[in-house]
Amino acid sequence: MSYFAGLLSTLFDRRYERAVSLDAEGRTMTELALDLLGARGEVSGSTLARLILDQYAGADDAEKRGFFAFMLQDLEIDPVEVVECLKAYKEAPSKRSYREYARASEPRRQELLRRLNQVPGGTAHLVSMRKDLLRMIRTDRMLGPLDVDFQHLFASWFNRGFLVLRPINWSSPAEILEKIIAYEAVHAIDSWDDLRRRLQPSDRRCFGFFHPAMPDEPLIFVEVALTRGIPNSIQSLLADGRDPIEAEEADTAVFYSISNCQAGLAGISFGNSLIKQVAADLSRDLSLIETFVTLSPIPGLSKWLDQADHPALKNASRQAQAAYYLLDAKREDRLPVDPVARFHLGNGASVHAVHADADLSENGMRQSYGAMVNYMYDLSRITTNHEQFVTEKTVAASPEVHALSALVAAAK
Amino acid sequence: MSYFAGLLSTLFDRRYERAVSLDAEGRTMTELALDLLGARGEVSGSTLARLILDQYAGADDAEKRGFFAFMLQDLEIDPVEVVECLKAYKEAPSKRSYREYARASEPRRQELLRRLNQVPGGTAHLVSMRKDLLRMIRTDRMLGPLDVDFQHLFASWFNRGFLVLRPINWSSPAEILEKIIAYEAVHAIDSWDDLRRRLQPSDRRCFGFFHPAMPDEPLIFVEVALTRGIPNSIQSLLADGRDPIEAEEADTAVFYSISNCQAGLAGISFGNSLIKQVAADLSRDLSLIETFVTLSPIPGLSKWLDQADHPALKNASRQAQAAYYLLDAKREDRLPVDPVARFHLGNGASVHAVHADADLSENGMRQSYGAMVNYMYDLSRITTNHEQFVTEKTVAASPEVHALSALVAAAK
Amino acid sequence: MSYFAGLLSTLFDRRYERAVSLDAEGRTMTELALDLLGARGEVSGSTLARLILDQYAGADDAEKRGFFAFMLQDLEIDPVEVVECLKAYKEAPSKRSYREYARASEPRRQELLRRLNQVPGGTAHLVSMRKDLLRMIRTDRMLGPLDVDFQHLFASWFNRGFLVLRPINWSSPAEILEKIIAYEAVHAIDSWDDLRRRLQPSDRRCFGFFHPAMPDEPLIFVEVALTRGIPNSIQSLLADGRDPIEAEEADTAVFYSISNCQAGLAGISFGNSLIKQVAADLSRDLSLIETFVTLSPIPGLSKWLDQADHPALKNASRQAQAAYYLLDAKREDRLPVDPVARFHLGNGASVHAVHADADLSENGMRQSYGAMVNYMYDLSRITTNHEQFVTEKTVAASPEVHALSALVAAAK
Amino acid sequence: MSYFAGLLSTLFDRRYERAVSLDAEGRTMTELALDLLGARGEVSGSTLARLILDQYAGADDAEKRGFFAFMLQDLEIDPVEVVECLKAYKEAPSKRSYREYARASEPRRQELLRRLNQVPGGTAHLVSMRKDLLRMIRTDRMLGPLDVDFQHLFASWFNRGFLVLRPINWSSPAEILEKIIAYEAVHAIDSWDDLRRRLQPSDRRCFGFFHPAMPDEPLIFVEVALTRGIPNSIQSLLADGRDPIEAEEADTAVFYSISNCQAGLAGISFGNSLIKQVAADLSRDLSLIETFVTLSPIPGLSKWLDQADHPALKNASRQAQAAYYLLDAKREDRLPVDPVARFHLGNGASVHAVHADADLSENGMRQSYGAMVNYMYDLSRITTNHEQFVTEKTVAASPEVHALSALVAAAK
Repeated sequence: MSYFAGLLSTLFDRRYERAVSLDAEGRTMTELALDLLGARGEVSGSTLARLILDQYAGADDAEKRGFFAFMLQDLEIDPVEVVECLKAYKEAPSKRSYREYARASEPRRQELLRRLNQVPGGTAHLVSMRKDLLRMIRTDRMLGPLDVDFQHLFASWFNRGFLVLRPINWSSPAEILEKIIAYEAVHAIDSWDDLRRRLQPSDRRCFGFFHPAMPDEPLIFVEVALTRGIPNSIQSLLADGRDPIEAEEADTAVFYSISNCQAGLAGISFGNSLIKQVAADLSRDLSLIETFVTLSPIPGLSKWLDQADHPALKNASRQAQAAYYLLDAKREDRLPVDPVARFHLGNGASVHAVHADADLSENGMRQSYGAMVNYMYDLSRITTNHEQFVTEKTVAASPEVHALSALVAAAK
Repeated sequence: MSYFAGLLSTLFDRRYERAVSLDAEGRTMTELALDLLGARGEVSGSTLARLILDQYAGADDAEKRGFFAFMLQDLEIDPVEVVECLKAYKEAPSKRSYREYARASEPRRQELLRRLNQVPGGTAHLVSMRKDLLRMIRTDRMLGPLDVDFQHLFASWFNRGFLVLRPINWSSPAEILEKIIAYEAVHAIDSWDDLRRRLQPSDRRCFGFFHPAMPDEPLIFVEVALTRGIPNSIQSLLADGRDPIEAEEADTAVFYSISNCQAGLAGISFGNSLIKQVAADLSRDLSLIETFVTLSPIPGLSKWLDQADHPALKNASRQAQAAYYLLDAKREDRLPVDPVARFHLGNGASVHAVHADADLSENGMRQSYGAMVNYMYDLSRITTNHEQFVTEKTVAASPEVHALSALVAAAK
Repeated sequence: MSYFAGLLSTLFDRRYERAVSLDAEGRTMTELALDLLGARGEVSGSTLARLILDQYAGADDAEKRGFFAFMLQDLEIDPVEVVECLKAYKEAPSKRSYREYARASEPRRQELLRRLNQVPGGTAHLVSMRKDLLRMIRTDRMLGPLDVDFQHLFASWFNRGFLVLRPINWSSPAEILEKIIAYEAVHAIDSWDDLRRRLQPSDRRCFGFFHPAMPDEPLIFVEVALTRGIPNSIQSLLADGRDPIEAEEADTAVFYSISNCQAGLAGISFGNSLIKQVAADLSRDLSLIETFVTLSPIPGLSKWLDQADHPALKNASRQAQAAYYLLDAKREDRLPVDPVARFHLGNGASVHAVHADADLSENGMRQSYGAMVNYMYDLSRITTNHEQFVTEKTVAASPEVHALSALVAAAK
Repeated sequence: MSYFAGLLSTLFDRRYERAVSLDAEGRTMTELALDLLGARGEVSGSTLARLILDQYAGADDAEKRGFFAFMLQDLEIDPVEVVECLKAYKEAPSKRSYREYARASEPRRQELLRRLNQVPGGTAHLVSMRKDLLRMIRTDRMLGPLDVDFQHLFASWFNRGFLVLRPINWSSPAEILEKIIAYEAVHAIDSWDDLRRRLQPSDRRCFGFFHPAMPDEPLIFVEVALTRGIPNSIQSLLADGRDPIEAEEADTAVFYSISNCQAGLAGISFGNSLIKQVAADLSRDLSLIETFVTLSPIPGLSKWLDQADHPALKNASRQAQAAYYLLDAKREDRLPVDPVARFHLGNGASVHAVHADADLSENGMRQSYGAMVNYMYDLSRITTNHEQFVTEKTVAASPEVHALSALVAAAK
């Protein structure tokens, strides 16, 4: 936004824009898109791309849907051409024949998206475009293939090597902090004062991944508490009047909240990289920290308990219920029912401890009757845990949690 | 390099690396690459990628060639699968069937390159890998298709929206400045003192494009002289004892040298964006500047003149020869013979003036018997010029240059 | 604070501190101060200084008063010594005799303050110390001379050449923004949302002076509105729902609030430099801006009107009252009664226009029955206005304001 | 320079400057200085200050000397006024009477220098002015008292709390690096390549103190080698082809060169702070480093040996000679003859080891017949060493050095 303003403020650009804009007047997004795909040289490309993104930003849902349909149908592959080019390439492999095949086998909409991405600020517009698309796909599954192209490109553009890890603290710009307030998805932040309590004390840290093309937009962030010992409730961790400890005295880093910020980047995974990178940075700066755990919600517990009808389970303690749920409640594919469990176990963590009355907030009571769990990231075991979870669906857990779960199993 | 060192210096990472590295010991690049492609989850992916890039960096040409052959043959598309997936998709289009087609139609080497790119610093390694590839392709054209994949990915990763324009001046880090000395391709820079003369005076500017994943490596840079009036020789422009003028007094910006820095990014075009962006920035900061021209070499003139056998041409003045060459010497595709001319005319510039005795250096005499040319970037005409050049192969030129060229044509 | 923590976190420092601290244990501030003055070499100086500042920070008012008394009495000049050194110097002027005189004529408390200032972060502590002193002086005028020393040193340390002008906007660190909320003295900022309305719109600017030794603490800041035409009320300027204009369209910059932030820097003047520098920066960046005015309160108007008993004045319009007050209400020294008027007129501004119903807030009604004034900074007249105000006490004003004031004067 | 240009480039300033400059035309530095001292308000002050500094910069030695004489004589204290004000203050101490005394007891030239310092960039000009002054004092000792005022103000402005420690490395701006080449006073740097060998290897560090008002000018810098064990010659330390070690493997930090950069800051001491701060930073970042030593020249050794006529001394080994010289060669005030020894011993270091053939350069042979010395900064002993050196003139040394020295003493 401000970038566009900045760019437009030069005489050079103004005159130049005007020339192209006049030509473009009265043309639709799809006409402009075809022009953009046909543009030879980059001279007029970036202006066309800008015009399309501007039109899109002002479009209503019907127009957006129309643009998606256009990309899906008019910029689709030509199956006959794909097969012909494939044949030509395999018969006489060369740079030229392969280039022809590569061009034909990829729908032109991918090239359109790449050209739209060439405008400064374009990336954020495309992320926002996919957010629209995902919303519409829910009711119009025909649009599904288009999302495959978006996801393919985003995975390439948002690869780990391009991301920048930045600390987020009370010295960060307000425009970033207000997004932390808005995006915190696990334990809501009520106000700027509440935010300050999360960021400013000596025993708190927050880190986010940023992409250079969207420097003011966190992609994902994690909030960390530095503690002595492993905490067993979110209330005590976030208590208003608590006494912070010195960071240098902490022996444990607790990842108590991880929030994705961009709906338009759904399915592009950053979480595991983030935890690993933050753990590495913390262990470098604070040499006493040896334990890395989470304090995580168990979002599916209440619902699952309500549906269960084993008396043994009903009568078990909350801790035992939670342990059993995490270790033994599985989906058809033999992976845990709980989505947060799947995430951390997939990263190589183990179920370290379960706690009753650990999140007494309305949300905590609703989703898990107040229970929470610590997943542990033990470096010496991450790879093994990860492999076993992926190949054999084994859930790594501490003996204590195993014992709790076994109580329920035995009683059934 | 320093990044890896930094990463390795944490206890966390050290222990972690060791676990994976031990497993990897004694395995070849291609075995590791297959592991990387098979890796489920990101846990071990970045370490595997790093091991491959490290092995590659230490490999000799035979090993590198082997790795390229592996990518080309073992990670090739399966034509049968492509056709089957294509058929399935067209018969029953869905997100799933399209994803299967997309996966099958793209060779797995692209996914391998994307995963190698996830390592911090990976991008620079891949750019260097393509430099090797391009060198080997010259003698082994079978490797050609592999370069199509590299180019496809690089065009996506180095799109204009990700690039950052930075001024390069006497306050820039030495590690960047030494690369300017190394990469200057048009008018060589002899020493740090020579560099200072290019950067420090009030009437000199230099700008480069950088990519966030390679922050210390300029991709391309342009050197600019701010002048009163359009200069007619490089000697006067770069004269040792000359008196600089105040930037605020200049009415003309002269792009006198554009250098690409990365052999591994050949064919990824930045030049036009760079000139346009720099012109926009300069016109914002220095309001008196109204003229944007180049002072460019004519690299093909000498050779072309030596081969020509028209007496009229031989007898013409150097200026007339140059004008005729730029306007009328064409390739089979009717585009100008001169590569620099093709670049600027393709960007929408026009041939503004030609000068004899304008570059008396050894190199200047060899390539063009000392002649040089100003291409003009006139905003009000860039789009028209560009369109006409691309569609009708028309070379835009000033009346004076047209007249010079006509002299020769008439005499022939 | 964080700096000290950082420093202490190194093993080197920890061991070193401990050695000095043990020696210092149980000693009072005044004993430590004498040690600090006696310290030969800097080796132990900075640690002693830190210990003193730490003790001071934890002291109660009685202890602080004791420390001030110590500085005033025990670190006082010795009149006999002053006279002797003066005599020696005048009889045989030399570097040595002058150095002796300079040493003797200055109380040792100045040297103490200079040594306390050598600790990183010391400057902020001393500013805070003077804040205490100024508070105590109100009831204990004997402490007055000590403030002369503080003021002397602060004028030297906070001279204009050391200050840095920084924009303050929605990208500024939260820790600075929260101080803007706290320090805004003219038109209170209620909340972060209110702050955002002051900083984020395209037609708003804010700038502050910072000192390198207190980088997180604004010394003074000014809020600016960019407008078309000169505004006549603060309500319209700060209206919630108003439509911002583009900065590039503005022809006027309105300084509508200037706030000093540091009570401990009372009497150290920054305001004039700030306005001049901000005007220079704005006129460079936004070429259409030609008018620089304030929209200022008239803090003494209500009180003065309530005390006046001229019927002509009572019956005059609010505008006429304000004009008469600003132009004709004088103190014994013939300068205007109104303190804000003295500030801007002393800077060379003129009274440009007066407005009734211009500040309808509780505070505005109380201090000036809602009237406000525009002071104009006209570059071509600043020096003349300033000189005439200082030498002849002439108040520069527009013909309209003169006419309004004359109405009242004539009726009296 | 560039700052002034920047400032002048605004219309606002241009008009304003012109007004003041016209008034100032044809006036001398001393007239302008009197104006500046008389200026009421800051409005015209900064312009006057700038004019004076500009005139001074263009003045020849006679004019500069004249300006110094003017400050010394015309801006001198009035002894009668000093005594009167002193009397008035002591009879009736008050803020007002003390202020009068303070004003009278300080020569007005100090206020002039403070006002000149208010111009951005003024500090650098004043440092340069003092450089001139020190040069002239050598032949004109009457100017001596003026330097007392400069030194007094500089000690206040360049106090430790205002200085910023910055690493200097191959990423530093060229404009700073060229000053390192110019200012290196101990072991000359021949070229940019030589500089790179000092800065770029993993086992080299360099740090400098900077003042915020002169951000491009290092005040002092120290070069550090990270080693395993304590080095015994500068040749091996700076050898061209040597293999760098990883910084993380080093156990020793060697301060092998400390250079002051500003002749105009002579007598303002930064060296001890610099060493202490750098040692603290290094021990935080590189946990294995436990030993902090210098590898220092012995500048007075050759000359002292040549003058000595004890046969025992003449016959002693170079090491024994050096040890004896450092421990036993004293000035009248019982401090060591060697200036570098006085510096480090005064900082609390001890003489750790002496080496023959340790600096075989021309300069090393001339000043010390090739001998060098390690001074050790042992944290647990710095305070004690410092105190004993200052109070009892005791030179701390290792048993080995004591033994070497004793050999010579015994033989005498």
